[in-house]
Amino acid sequence: MRILSSKQQIENYIETAKIRKWENEEEIEQKVRRIISDVKDKKDEALLYYTRMFDCKGICLNELRVVQEEIERAYFECEKEDGDFIDALNAAYKNIYEYHMRQKEESWFYIKNGSLLGQIIMPLEKVGIYVPGGKGAYPSTVLMNSIPAKVAGVEKIIMVTPPDKNKSISKYTLAAAKICGIDEIYKVGGAQAVAALAFGTQIIPKVDKIVGPGNIYVATAKKLLFGYVDIDSVAGPSEVMVIADESANPKYIAADLLSQAEHDPMARCILVTTSLQVAQEVSENVDKMLARFENSVAFEAIEKNGVIIVVDDLFEAAEIANIIAPEHLEICCNDAEKVLFKIRNAGAVFVGEYSPEPIGDYIAGPNHVLPTSGTASFFSPLGVYDFVKRMSLIKYSKEQFLTDAPHAINIAQKEGFLFHANSLKVRLEDV
Amino acid sequence: MRILSSKQQIENYIETAKIRKWENEEEIEQKVRRIISDVKDKKDEALLYYTRMFDCKGICLNELRVVQEEIERAYFECEKEDGDFIDALNAAYKNIYEYHMRQKEESWFYIKNGSLLGQIIMPLEKVGIYVPGGKGAYPSTVLMNSIPAKVAGVEKIIMVTPPDKNKSISKYTLAAAKICGIDEIYKVGGAQAVAALAFGTQIIPKVDKIVGPGNIYVATAKKLLFGYVDIDSVAGPSEVMVIADESANPKYIAADLLSQAEHDPMARCILVTTSLQVAQEVSENVDKMLARFENSVAFEAIEKNGVIIVVDDLFEAAEIANIIAPEHLEICCNDAEKVLFKIRNAGAVFVGEYSPEPIGDYIAGPNHVLPTSGTASFFSPLGVYDFVKRMSLIKYSKEQFLTDAPHAINIAQKEGFLFHANSLKVRLEDV
Repeated sequence: MRILSSKQQIENYIETAKIRKWENEEEIEQKVRRIISDVKDKKDEALLYYTRMFDCKGICLNELRVVQEEIERAYFECEKEDGDFIDALNAAYKNIYEYHMRQKEESWFYIKNGSLLGQIIMPLEKVGIYVPGGKGAYPSTVLMNSIPAKVAGVEKIIMVTPPDKNKSISKYTLAAAKICGIDEIYKVGGAQAVAALAFGTQIIPKVDKIVGPGNIYVATAKKLLFGYVDIDSVAGPSEVMVIADESANPKYIAADLLSQAEHDPMARCILVTTSLQVAQEVSENVDKMLARFENSVAFEAIEKNGVIIVVDDLFEAAEIANIIAPEHLEICCNDAEKVLFKIRNAGAVFVGEYSPEPIGDYIAGPNHVLPTSGTASFFSPLGVYDFVKRMSLIKYSKEQFLTDAPHAINIAQKEGFLFHANSLKVRLEDV
Repeated sequence: MRILSSKQQIENYIETAKIRKWENEEEIEQKVRRIISDVKDKKDEALLYYTRMFDCKGICLNELRVVQEEIERAYFECEKEDGDFIDALNAAYKNIYEYHMRQKEESWFYIKNGSLLGQIIMPLEKVGIYVPGGKGAYPSTVLMNSIPAKVAGVEKIIMVTPPDKNKSISKYTLAAAKICGIDEIYKVGGAQAVAALAFGTQIIPKVDKIVGPGNIYVATAKKLLFGYVDIDSVAGPSEVMVIADESANPKYIAADLLSQAEHDPMARCILVTTSLQVAQEVSENVDKMLARFENSVAFEAIEKNGVIIVVDDLFEAAEIANIIAPEHLEICCNDAEKVLFKIRNAGAVFVGEYSPEPIGDYIAGPNHVLPTSGTASFFSPLGVYDFVKRMSLIKYSKEQFLTDAPHAINIAQKEGFLFHANSLKVRLEDV
């Protein structure tokens, strides 16, 4: 891995790393707009057309919906193949559920001069979850996206995922869906699946919000439909940053950097350390592990976006973290709390040698859907708060109205809204 | 106003009302993309260019920033003109601050088998507030957008607002900005202001989030830049719905419908009532008030989108509200709570005869930035939660790691992420 240690090298790196390209994605947008329009107009017919074109030939309408029997069979096959897998999903479910229960908010009210004011929390009614498919299997995506919705009290969770060319969906994904109590599952992916959830078709219900990761077509469709439907944050290439002092274990750090690297050739793996020795040993360990695993995605990510920054002290390291705002931040230092308290911008922070990123990806409890590409300075992990909405409540008393209406009339008049003033005046006149 | 009472009429109306057009705004987007690119590349030079072109001729760079003296002078002039206005702003500030303080959330942590898990709440660092300008004055916009940011603990609030052709900003707006403690104010509007806040220029700082209402160019710029910066929800034409039984005061309802109508010719004003007499009297009162005020915007809104629906019972009324998901919902009924408890989708609910919509617009306390155009089924009022982000914290104990790592390895392997499994295995091997 590249090791940067001079002030100039580090400054140059941070300058380029913090700039996010303003990408003009008009070409992809045009394609996606066309798919959205087609699905809006032709509904299921369009879904079938695009699913046949992109995913699998010859699929017919009644095969788009995954029937209960198919889910049960998948679960049974998983159990037969490896009972530990079902145990693992259940253990993860339990931890994730427990963590997210603490995010649950209650409605509140207060009374002031006889007036009642409040905030009512309501779960969303229907939510769509996009789970990538094709050759891959993503049971953890099902858990992380559906559990907060369940905890929020969402009535109906609809999952969409593209089938492989044999018209199937991974049994691992289906087993996770069964454990999470997903209400309906459809074999459809891409921009067409997002459009179907946003507008509804004959078989797929219209939802209030769409969450879950996907390729550039899925992300573009979500962005274009934002406002017609709510979406989770727009995901880009993800990153891990490790802050380490001389006490850190280079083998662990190398393994953690590579676990991020295998996601995507664009993934960024950054080590910031006060120890030149740790820097060198991490670099050696990365090379050794890369040679052993022969993973071309990880190799490319490390080559392109892997970097080790050697700094003078841990404050400088924390400062770099705050500028980069990494999705995942590991702190492997003797005095980890001192660093932690300087961190403002990160999606999730992992402290100590038994908290590698994958423990958070799969089982610890906090959500693994985290703000990527530097958006941790303003976005949050996916949570129960993403699956509720709030309504304000105002029940004014006559007494409070008499005090406040004249003020409101004054401001309304300054803004030139005479009918607003009138609505208050007609009541004052009657008193 | 149109009065609908047959089942068929009502069904037809709801069918059209609930459909939101999928608008292909490529033409406006193209213009806005160009402005965004210009501001990103040429920064202040582009701001000056567009401000001269769209707002006022001959403005120069040092005039873009509003200096403290200009703010003080505006405040002083407001005080001289009408001391009650300053009192009104202060009264509104107090109520709004008090309500939003109840939205403040704290970080939390818990310990499980020696592991520490938690959620850290952090205010956003810098926020941009867009306030419309030109001929209008919007002091209430300043209050409603900045107070939740203040309560959240945002470090720097930057306001942008377009100048009128004499290079000035309304003194009412500036007085509100002084009361709210806005940190920096710039005379720049439109898509160029949004781009400046998203990327930063020589004089305008880059922010984490942009909130506040604006025209279609402002809204389009926000939508295109979502992800590079956070934004509030995308605003469309707004609406009020009143649910009334025979006990309601037709004069009040007419006045409230018109207060919404004067916002925008596209505004929707809907009365749903169980009483044909109330329906007729509201219609007559609307005509009378329209004749008295001669407001062409309100006239057009009522003509185009004003409707009175006569229903059999209040449950039907609540059902219609849930389908339309109005921004503002007034409940003017004897047994208002019975209706309230049926409401799922509304931005803010106003109960009883002393709670007209304008009392919420200006002074009651809850935010007047509400989800419009039916988005109340998934969006929330602007609140303190919009100005914070969350970070997850994972500090795993060795004990918990030994229990959970095998499960995580199992799931990682099923997903084909061998480097994820490796990151856990290298630690297990050392135990």
